[in-house]
Amino acid sequence: TADQLERVTQELVPPPFVPKHEQVAKGKPKVVQVTLTVEEKQVELENGVKAWVSAFNGSVPGPLIVCHQHDYVELTLKNPKTNALAHNIDLHASTGALGGGELTLVSPGEEVTFRFKATKVGTFVYHCAPGGIMIPWHVAMGMAGAIMVLPRDGLKDGHGNPIRYDKAYYVGEQDFYVPTDKNGKYKEYSTVTGSMNDTLEVMKTLTPSHIVFNGAVGALTGKNAMTAKVGETVMFIHSQPNRDTRPHIIGGHGDYVWATGQFNDAPQTDLETWGIPGGCAGAAIYTFLQPGLYAYVNHNLIEAIMKGAAGHIKVDGE
Amino acid sequence: TADQLERVTQELVPPPFVPKHEQVAKGKPKVVQVTLTVEEKQVELENGVKAWVSAFNGSVPGPLIVCHQHDYVELTLKNPKTNALAHNIDLHASTGALGGGELTLVSPGEEVTFRFKATKVGTFVYHCAPGGIMIPWHVAMGMAGAIMVLPRDGLKDGHGNPIRYDKAYYVGEQDFYVPTDKNGKYKEYSTVTGSMNDTLEVMKTLTPSHIVFNGAVGALTGKNAMTAKVGETVMFIHSQPNRDTRPHIIGGHGDYVWATGQFNDAPQTDLETWGIPGGCAGAAIYTFLQPGLYAYVNHNLIEAIMKGAAGHIKVDGE
Amino acid sequence: TADQLERVTQELVPPPFVPKHEQVAKGKPKVVQVTLTVEEKQVELENGVKAWVSAFNGSVPGPLIVCHQHDYVELTLKNPKTNALAHNIDLHASTGALGGGELTLVSPGEEVTFRFKATKVGTFVYHCAPGGIMIPWHVAMGMAGAIMVLPRDGLKDGHGNPIRYDKAYYVGEQDFYVPTDKNGKYKEYSTVTGSMNDTLEVMKTLTPSHIVFNGAVGALTGKNAMTAKVGETVMFIHSQPNRDTRPHIIGGHGDYVWATGQFNDAPQTDLETWGIPGGCAGAAIYTFLQPGLYAYVNHNLIEAIMKGAAGHIKVDGE
Ligand SMILES: [Cu+2]
Ligand SMILES: [Cu+2]
Ligand SMILES: [Cu+2]
Ligand SMILES: [Cu+2]
Ligand SMILES: [Cu+2]
Ligand SMILES: [Cu+2]
Ligand code: NA
Ligand code: NA
Ligand code: NA
Ligand code: NA
Ligand code: NA
Ligand code: NA
Ligand SMILES: [Zn+2]
Ligand SMILES: [Zn+2]
Ligand SMILES: [Zn+2]
Ligand SMILES: [Zn+2]
Ligand SMILES: [Zn+2]
Ligand SMILES: [Zn+2]
Ligand SMILES: [Zn+2]
Ligand SMILES: [Zn+2]
Ligand SMILES: [Zn+2]
Repeated sequence: TADQLERVTQELVPPPFVPKHEQVAKGKPKVVQVTLTVEEKQVELENGVKAWVSAFNGSVPGPLIVCHQHDYVELTLKNPKTNALAHNIDLHASTGALGGGELTLVSPGEEVTFRFKATKVGTFVYHCAPGGIMIPWHVAMGMAGAIMVLPRDGLKDGHGNPIRYDKAYYVGEQDFYVPTDKNGKYKEYSTVTGSMNDTLEVMKTLTPSHIVFNGAVGALTGKNAMTAKVGETVMFIHSQPNRDTRPHIIGGHGDYVWATGQFNDAPQTDLETWGIPGGCAGAAIYTFLQPGLYAYVNHNLIEAIMKGAAGHIKVDGE
Repeated sequence: TADQLERVTQELVPPPFVPKHEQVAKGKPKVVQVTLTVEEKQVELENGVKAWVSAFNGSVPGPLIVCHQHDYVELTLKNPKTNALAHNIDLHASTGALGGGELTLVSPGEEVTFRFKATKVGTFVYHCAPGGIMIPWHVAMGMAGAIMVLPRDGLKDGHGNPIRYDKAYYVGEQDFYVPTDKNGKYKEYSTVTGSMNDTLEVMKTLTPSHIVFNGAVGALTGKNAMTAKVGETVMFIHSQPNRDTRPHIIGGHGDYVWATGQFNDAPQTDLETWGIPGGCAGAAIYTFLQPGLYAYVNHNLIEAIMKGAAGHIKVDGE
Repeated sequence: TADQLERVTQELVPPPFVPKHEQVAKGKPKVVQVTLTVEEKQVELENGVKAWVSAFNGSVPGPLIVCHQHDYVELTLKNPKTNALAHNIDLHASTGALGGGELTLVSPGEEVTFRFKATKVGTFVYHCAPGGIMIPWHVAMGMAGAIMVLPRDGLKDGHGNPIRYDKAYYVGEQDFYVPTDKNGKYKEYSTVTGSMNDTLEVMKTLTPSHIVFNGAVGALTGKNAMTAKVGETVMFIHSQPNRDTRPHIIGGHGDYVWATGQFNDAPQTDLETWGIPGGCAGAAIYTFLQPGLYAYVNHNLIEAIMKGAAGHIKVDGE
């Protein structure tokens, strides 16, 4: 069955970029092979503020995986022996076995390969879920990403008309909980395990110190801003593994929005802002009509400006 | 009119179980009689942490009431004289009179009977709402439940095809605000009124100490896990009287989801996670395809694992 | 083009009232002229608690603007020289130029006129967005309102049947972050700029001290309660520029609900509570069937009763 299908290796790319893919599937279902390697490392969340992350392929969020319905995804998860922690992967697109979490727990120095059939279309969160308190801690260390399962015949509006995009971006929103010392200064930790207890205490407050796109405050601005041309139709895939969010394009709209990412249901149209529940990846499509700088934000404006959940889209043309 | 209709007494059962009911109504509308008795008592939220609850029929959440559209619900609310507080009931399925709250306020030692017609279909929250500050306090003491008003001809998908379930569970999510002493240790109170002021102070922070399913951390795990068989279609009714929530079945999906519980609108399909606003009861249906242990969580994973909003579903079969 | 269209001046009114308007557009698209003057002033949020606001036309929320699709809105923004701060306006109904924010920044003593075409139907937030930290601060000072762009042929249900309302109210929900001193007493500030740093510190906690309708606790109760008659169909437009909210009519329902305000999509029906993401304005319609006092709340009952997000609707008739 799956063993007789064509096999393709998907080259994963760092977000906000998305892998090359067809919007309408060509031929029969395939086996899509991907590899994710876990990096435990310290990153700079904003000027002078460091945090430990556990990062699929080294990025927060992990890379977007793209396939079509009825494809199989064959995922290899590698946990280098230089890491300190055990990790696994739960993909919300998968069925049974805790979304894969049950089959993929790997200690440092191990790797595992796991295959599932993409039976449901949509955009879905994946994340590490190694059991108990490790689940929220690893996810709050940025260990989450998304997979997009496209309908074989591509996206459609509520009347069955095809919707196509010229380009796509993947924005992963992540809440961080950096501990502070008695003077309110953010603390640093020399090891990932050393950061755990203090971080858990902040997590209990349900109040993030940082909420960022693409792993750091300002990661999608300046020379790293997203880009588009006037007249281009852009898809924005947006995931948040924990907290509810509310994407908004300042100066733009969501022409078509699948807020929970379910492509088989009719998209909502012409939204100012769309609500994505925590633990969900959604998608929105916008055709840029005017040149200029747009901001892409979580429209809790405190979370956008004071916590970091904001990026830019530079739109060229006339 | 209502007096000429057949009368049936519904035997209410403790959640997560739901009363025996027909999915398609038989015959004419009925008068469905139910009785709710308020229990004020101390419960153990987790090991060594006690909280006062005001509980409809002694359970948090209160029992699920089930009827069909056009039925009348005749509800008797009993407030035993051993209680300290006045209580009432506001059912979101009811129309006028503050959802019944205006007609049902009973002091300890009193009871009241109230009848309303179930004109709107869906899953709805009910809760105590005895006026002013008593409203959030009683609700934050777990005094909330849900009523499901089924369409007379049963549930349908977006194309008008019938949807039937093999079993149903009712998961009531509840936020608790247990005060701590200066050392961060959870406090205990010898009387319900004694717990009020401190609890209100914690409530003002909008940050629960606990968010639980079925009244306690772990109440739906181990020997109290929900169960299903491979191939069974299970409905999960989920209510939260205060805070937004985002149910997710780890390893499963929402095949059909009415996130706000409105059965006359087309359900969303194949969701990873669904957002239920605070003050709402929603419903989701899933057909289990594989055996094993599934987790049913609020997918803010901090709320699930560190605050308690997680349960298990044990699925047998092959 | 726009210069050849009929010009009308819309008389804006303080919320919860809405400007006189046609539900079905008469004749061709028009240019709708409106003027917003910014008032910086101290207001009383509740007994003895003062806060600085920056208020469009002096009210929190700013007035509702109403037009039809394809109309142009010509907006004059006046910043009196008695003010201390620069302000602008970003209307989510507008396209490009940061929703107008880029074109409208005015220092004290200046005014600006800006015109945009209402290409998308729905209810939309507008707010001040003068850049950087000024954005969340001005919005958290109540500098937000809403615009309703009606379809030219009026509202419709999911089957294409017309929906008409007898009256409409605009409820603007606003989160405030009033600093406290070391004894927990709310602080007062003699200047708006003097209040900034402390207020930003509270904003970082993401925990409002107040969440109010119409600018103050109790502003929509008593002699200022909203009113209706039995049999009347009332539209409630509800905006929140920052935080998610969940409107609910105690004793009533949402017969038709556009939670994100998108009138071209089929409304949801018969809801108990509807979720509006932060940064969004939504709309709901209810026909009152019984006389009495109804409460209109954000159904996080702590936010409603302890933070202020509650109003009343007095319904006369039999
Ligand atoms: Cu991990
Ligand atoms: Cu998950
Ligand atoms: Cu009560
Ligand atoms: Cu209620
Ligand atoms: Cu301003
Ligand atoms: Cu905005
Ligand atoms: Na916008
Ligand atoms: Na999704
Ligand atoms: Na899952
Ligand atoms: Na409901
Ligand atoms: Na109600
Ligand atoms: Na809107
Ligand atoms: Zn297929
Ligand atoms: Zn998980
Ligand atoms: Zn459009
Ligand atoms: Zn009927
Ligand atoms: Zn109530
Ligand atoms: Zn399905
Ligand atoms: Zn038109
Ligand atoms: Zn803005
Ligand atoms: Zn109705």
